[in-house]
Amino acid sequence: MQAEAGLRARVGAFIESAPIQRLIITLILINAAILGLATSPALMEKTGPWLMYADRIILGIFVVEILLKLYAQGLSFFRRPWNVFDFLVITIALIPTTGPLAVLRVLRVLRLVSMVPKLRFIVEALLKAIPGILSIFALLILLFYVFAVIATGLFGQAYPDWFGHLGRAMYTLFQVMTLESWSMGISRPVMETFPWAWLFFVPFILIATFTMLNLFIAIIVNTMQSMQEEQQKFEHEAIGEVVHAENAQLHEDLKALRQEIASLRQEISQLRRED
Amino acid sequence: MQAEAGLRARVGAFIESAPIQRLIITLILINAAILGLATSPALMEKTGPWLMYADRIILGIFVVEILLKLYAQGLSFFRRPWNVFDFLVITIALIPTTGPLAVLRVLRVLRLVSMVPKLRFIVEALLKAIPGILSIFALLILLFYVFAVIATGLFGQAYPDWFGHLGRAMYTLFQVMTLESWSMGISRPVMETFPWAWLFFVPFILIATFTMLNLFIAIIVNTMQSMQEEQQKFEHEAIGEVVHAENAQLHEDLKALRQEIASLRQEISQLRRED
Amino acid sequence: MQAEAGLRARVGAFIESAPIQRLIITLILINAAILGLATSPALMEKTGPWLMYADRIILGIFVVEILLKLYAQGLSFFRRPWNVFDFLVITIALIPTTGPLAVLRVLRVLRLVSMVPKLRFIVEALLKAIPGILSIFALLILLFYVFAVIATGLFGQAYPDWFGHLGRAMYTLFQVMTLESWSMGISRPVMETFPWAWLFFVPFILIATFTMLNLFIAIIVNTMQSMQEEQQKFEHEAIGEVVHAENAQLHEDLKALRQEIASLRQEISQLRRED
Amino acid sequence: MQAEAGLRARVGAFIESAPIQRLIITLILINAAILGLATSPALMEKTGPWLMYADRIILGIFVVEILLKLYAQGLSFFRRPWNVFDFLVITIALIPTTGPLAVLRVLRVLRLVSMVPKLRFIVEALLKAIPGILSIFALLILLFYVFAVIATGLFGQAYPDWFGHLGRAMYTLFQVMTLESWSMGISRPVMETFPWAWLFFVPFILIATFTMLNLFIAIIVNTMQSMQEEQQKFEHEAIGEVVHAENAQLHEDLKALRQEIASLRQEISQLRRED
Repeated sequence: MQAEAGLRARVGAFIESAPIQRLIITLILINAAILGLATSPALMEKTGPWLMYADRIILGIFVVEILLKLYAQGLSFFRRPWNVFDFLVITIALIPTTGPLAVLRVLRVLRLVSMVPKLRFIVEALLKAIPGILSIFALLILLFYVFAVIATGLFGQAYPDWFGHLGRAMYTLFQVMTLESWSMGISRPVMETFPWAWLFFVPFILIATFTMLNLFIAIIVNTMQSMQEEQQKFEHEAIGEVVHAENAQLHEDLKALRQEIASLRQEISQLRRED
Repeated sequence: MQAEAGLRARVGAFIESAPIQRLIITLILINAAILGLATSPALMEKTGPWLMYADRIILGIFVVEILLKLYAQGLSFFRRPWNVFDFLVITIALIPTTGPLAVLRVLRVLRLVSMVPKLRFIVEALLKAIPGILSIFALLILLFYVFAVIATGLFGQAYPDWFGHLGRAMYTLFQVMTLESWSMGISRPVMETFPWAWLFFVPFILIATFTMLNLFIAIIVNTMQSMQEEQQKFEHEAIGEVVHAENAQLHEDLKALRQEIASLRQEISQLRRED
Repeated sequence: MQAEAGLRARVGAFIESAPIQRLIITLILINAAILGLATSPALMEKTGPWLMYADRIILGIFVVEILLKLYAQGLSFFRRPWNVFDFLVITIALIPTTGPLAVLRVLRVLRLVSMVPKLRFIVEALLKAIPGILSIFALLILLFYVFAVIATGLFGQAYPDWFGHLGRAMYTLFQVMTLESWSMGISRPVMETFPWAWLFFVPFILIATFTMLNLFIAIIVNTMQSMQEEQQKFEHEAIGEVVHAENAQLHEDLKALRQEIASLRQEISQLRRED
Repeated sequence: MQAEAGLRARVGAFIESAPIQRLIITLILINAAILGLATSPALMEKTGPWLMYADRIILGIFVVEILLKLYAQGLSFFRRPWNVFDFLVITIALIPTTGPLAVLRVLRVLRLVSMVPKLRFIVEALLKAIPGILSIFALLILLFYVFAVIATGLFGQAYPDWFGHLGRAMYTLFQVMTLESWSMGISRPVMETFPWAWLFFVPFILIATFTMLNLFIAIIVNTMQSMQEEQQKFEHEAIGEVVHAENAQLHEDLKALRQEIASLRQEISQLRRED
């Protein structure tokens, strides 16, 4: 039992060691190149089997890596979200798919994020920004839903491609929110049938972009706030030092005073002795 | 009279109680789903009457809820803006409309905002940002009006669809401000008749986007300012504590000094007694 | 001479008085409505002469107002930029123009900005942001010039409508910078003749939008900086008060010490007297 | 040897002197105008040889300037990046090219940036912002790569113009990220063949614009942070002064106390002498 724990620790240390990590990163980059080359039909005709062979080998190494980590860390492996991410990405690659979904094996390349600390740090920072904006996001979805129901009811029959059902209407409203062809492509044609349709589109754009803007500002302000809180700790220490330095003078004054009093006391003592 | 006041208070407490609030929120969500399903003609053919029946029942519950709140709070009900919002949204749903305006009953779903504190908080924050930008908004409308009058005068006869009257010109300028097809869709065609038309469109875009940008910055700066003011109170207290801690040392020094003098005094007293 | 100075002062006080200012603002708004109505050919046929008559009367009142101000303030009238603005706007309206340029009389409506303090304040704030971004703006123009010369040389002959001469190339690059139809409208067609054209457009977009972004950030940072400087004065005073309050305790300590020493001195004096 | 060092120093001082700098800036502006005029075929027919002649002379002066600087500064010339920039821009202009690449000689105009301190400062500020965003940029490129591989695999055969190979897919995704015609131009046509294609485009837009947004915020926050750090130094000094001023009072108190004790001591000395 203890021997196994030792083996586990050694396997864990081995798989997390710098050279192995570098090897894995190199393999991910090679794999990314292979998957990129595999998109070219001309190349695939000539070297297709070799590319697929290399891809399988690299996938095999990844599977071994994950299994070793699983062995080393046991079920606590799944406690780190990045491990879960690696596990999912490899599992997707292992599912035998043909046809369009086979391209999802390229998601494996995203393991680069979990392996390179700087990228991991940035993705974590991006994800940290999400909870602060979840309720604005919920509000945005509510607005989309209400406007989509209205649009389907108003324009659905006349413009089935854009507002035929709720899903289409939400897609079209998403396009309108990104301001892509909202007027020349959507609103002006709709206004040919319903001349008052701008009363729907212009307020929607104003409300949606204003909400998006505030979502944006919320992220800026949150980022700054957490930045300032960290800074403030340093600052209070710095101010403490400034006050300390200024008080040092007073401290010196008091020390001199005490010496003065001490010598005064001595003199009084002498006075008593003389008596 | 007192009995009625007691009843009112009990009705008020009942209607504001957590389970009733949860029930209303659930009913709003169910109502949202019903109104979403009702946009599908295929579904309406099969289950239309049932959906409408459920919709009426839920609307009835909402009416009872509002009436109970009105009974409990009296006219002070209308003092809270969110109550007025609820009242309006329910009233709109009660007006017997057929045709396109019937879709406005979906506005009822927006009651979710007034029921869920987090959403209410965000909408209040969004609305709070408005007064600070009202005068920039007034300036923007003034600019739109002036540019629209100029555009109608210059391009109105040649391009009646875009600049035929003031309303059309303002709509087109709004489209130009969102940068949607401003050049390929509007400005280039106009420049075929009036080659100098870019002297109108390019300055308009520069002025309008610069003003919008400042509107945006005004919101960021306002938000940060109010954030910092709150923070500053905490900070002053924190600096107070830092200074207090630093001064505590001096305080100790002074205390020691006083004791020294006190003992000195005693010595002199002894000296006198010895005399 | 002194009598004239008195008359001037009285005329100045009259023209700047609140009721006259309100009258002028009302007239500007009426004038704006008249100029708006005048854009409708149908209305002009019926009431055209009456509208033009009213427009002339209001313009006459504005001329009298400006002349009275000029009389009251003399040449110092031209020292205030807003007066120069009013003067120019009225002068433009007086130039007898027919044809398209006649619409420029609507610029008169912009006097609303110089009359309403809040709007004036905002425009001044907008203008104050300009010096801080002038050098980024100069850089942007330099970039535009260089890219326009390159584009004219490369694509001018094949696409004369877009890059035929420097002016057209700069207009097209401005359109590309606003991202309007840059790919489907300009870059993809150009790439049909010059497949490497994306090497021109994509870097241009990256450089131009990155520079614009920094222009934007420069405005935010400038606004915040001037905001913080104002705030810092208050803060230093506030910190001064905090330190003062904390030091008050030490002050009390020292006072007690002095009293102690004073009584000590008295005792010694008594000791001497007893001697 | 020493004579040569003296000559070098004199040449260096001459070439960096204000009048020579002004002359070079003037020549760059004239050169810019010449290169602008040279884009017009009509002008080139009439004055082409003269323009080219003037262009050659100015280029010759630039070459002499660079050579003199090289002589004065030796190899340390290449230590300043702006010198390297000047050197490259002049070298590109000297390579005898015909055809489209000849337009690259206009890059010479960018020397204006290296000559005008304000422009140089801004470009340096822009470049300084880059290291802080490099890792977000790397993440963005990784995302582009993964999405491009997926898009090529899914839509490549059906829409070869947009997603035919990796390069085309990345260009199209860049267009989609700028939101240009992403829906009407790309996504809606693709959805006619693959109705679920929005599941690719909408998440891509959300992820790409969210990442871009954070890149943007990173620049703002970095700029503010470095701004605040500078400010903080000043602030700490200012707080130091405030504390110093407040402590001055205590200092005075202590001084008075010491004098009191000194006179007390004198009194005791007198007491002893009297004894």
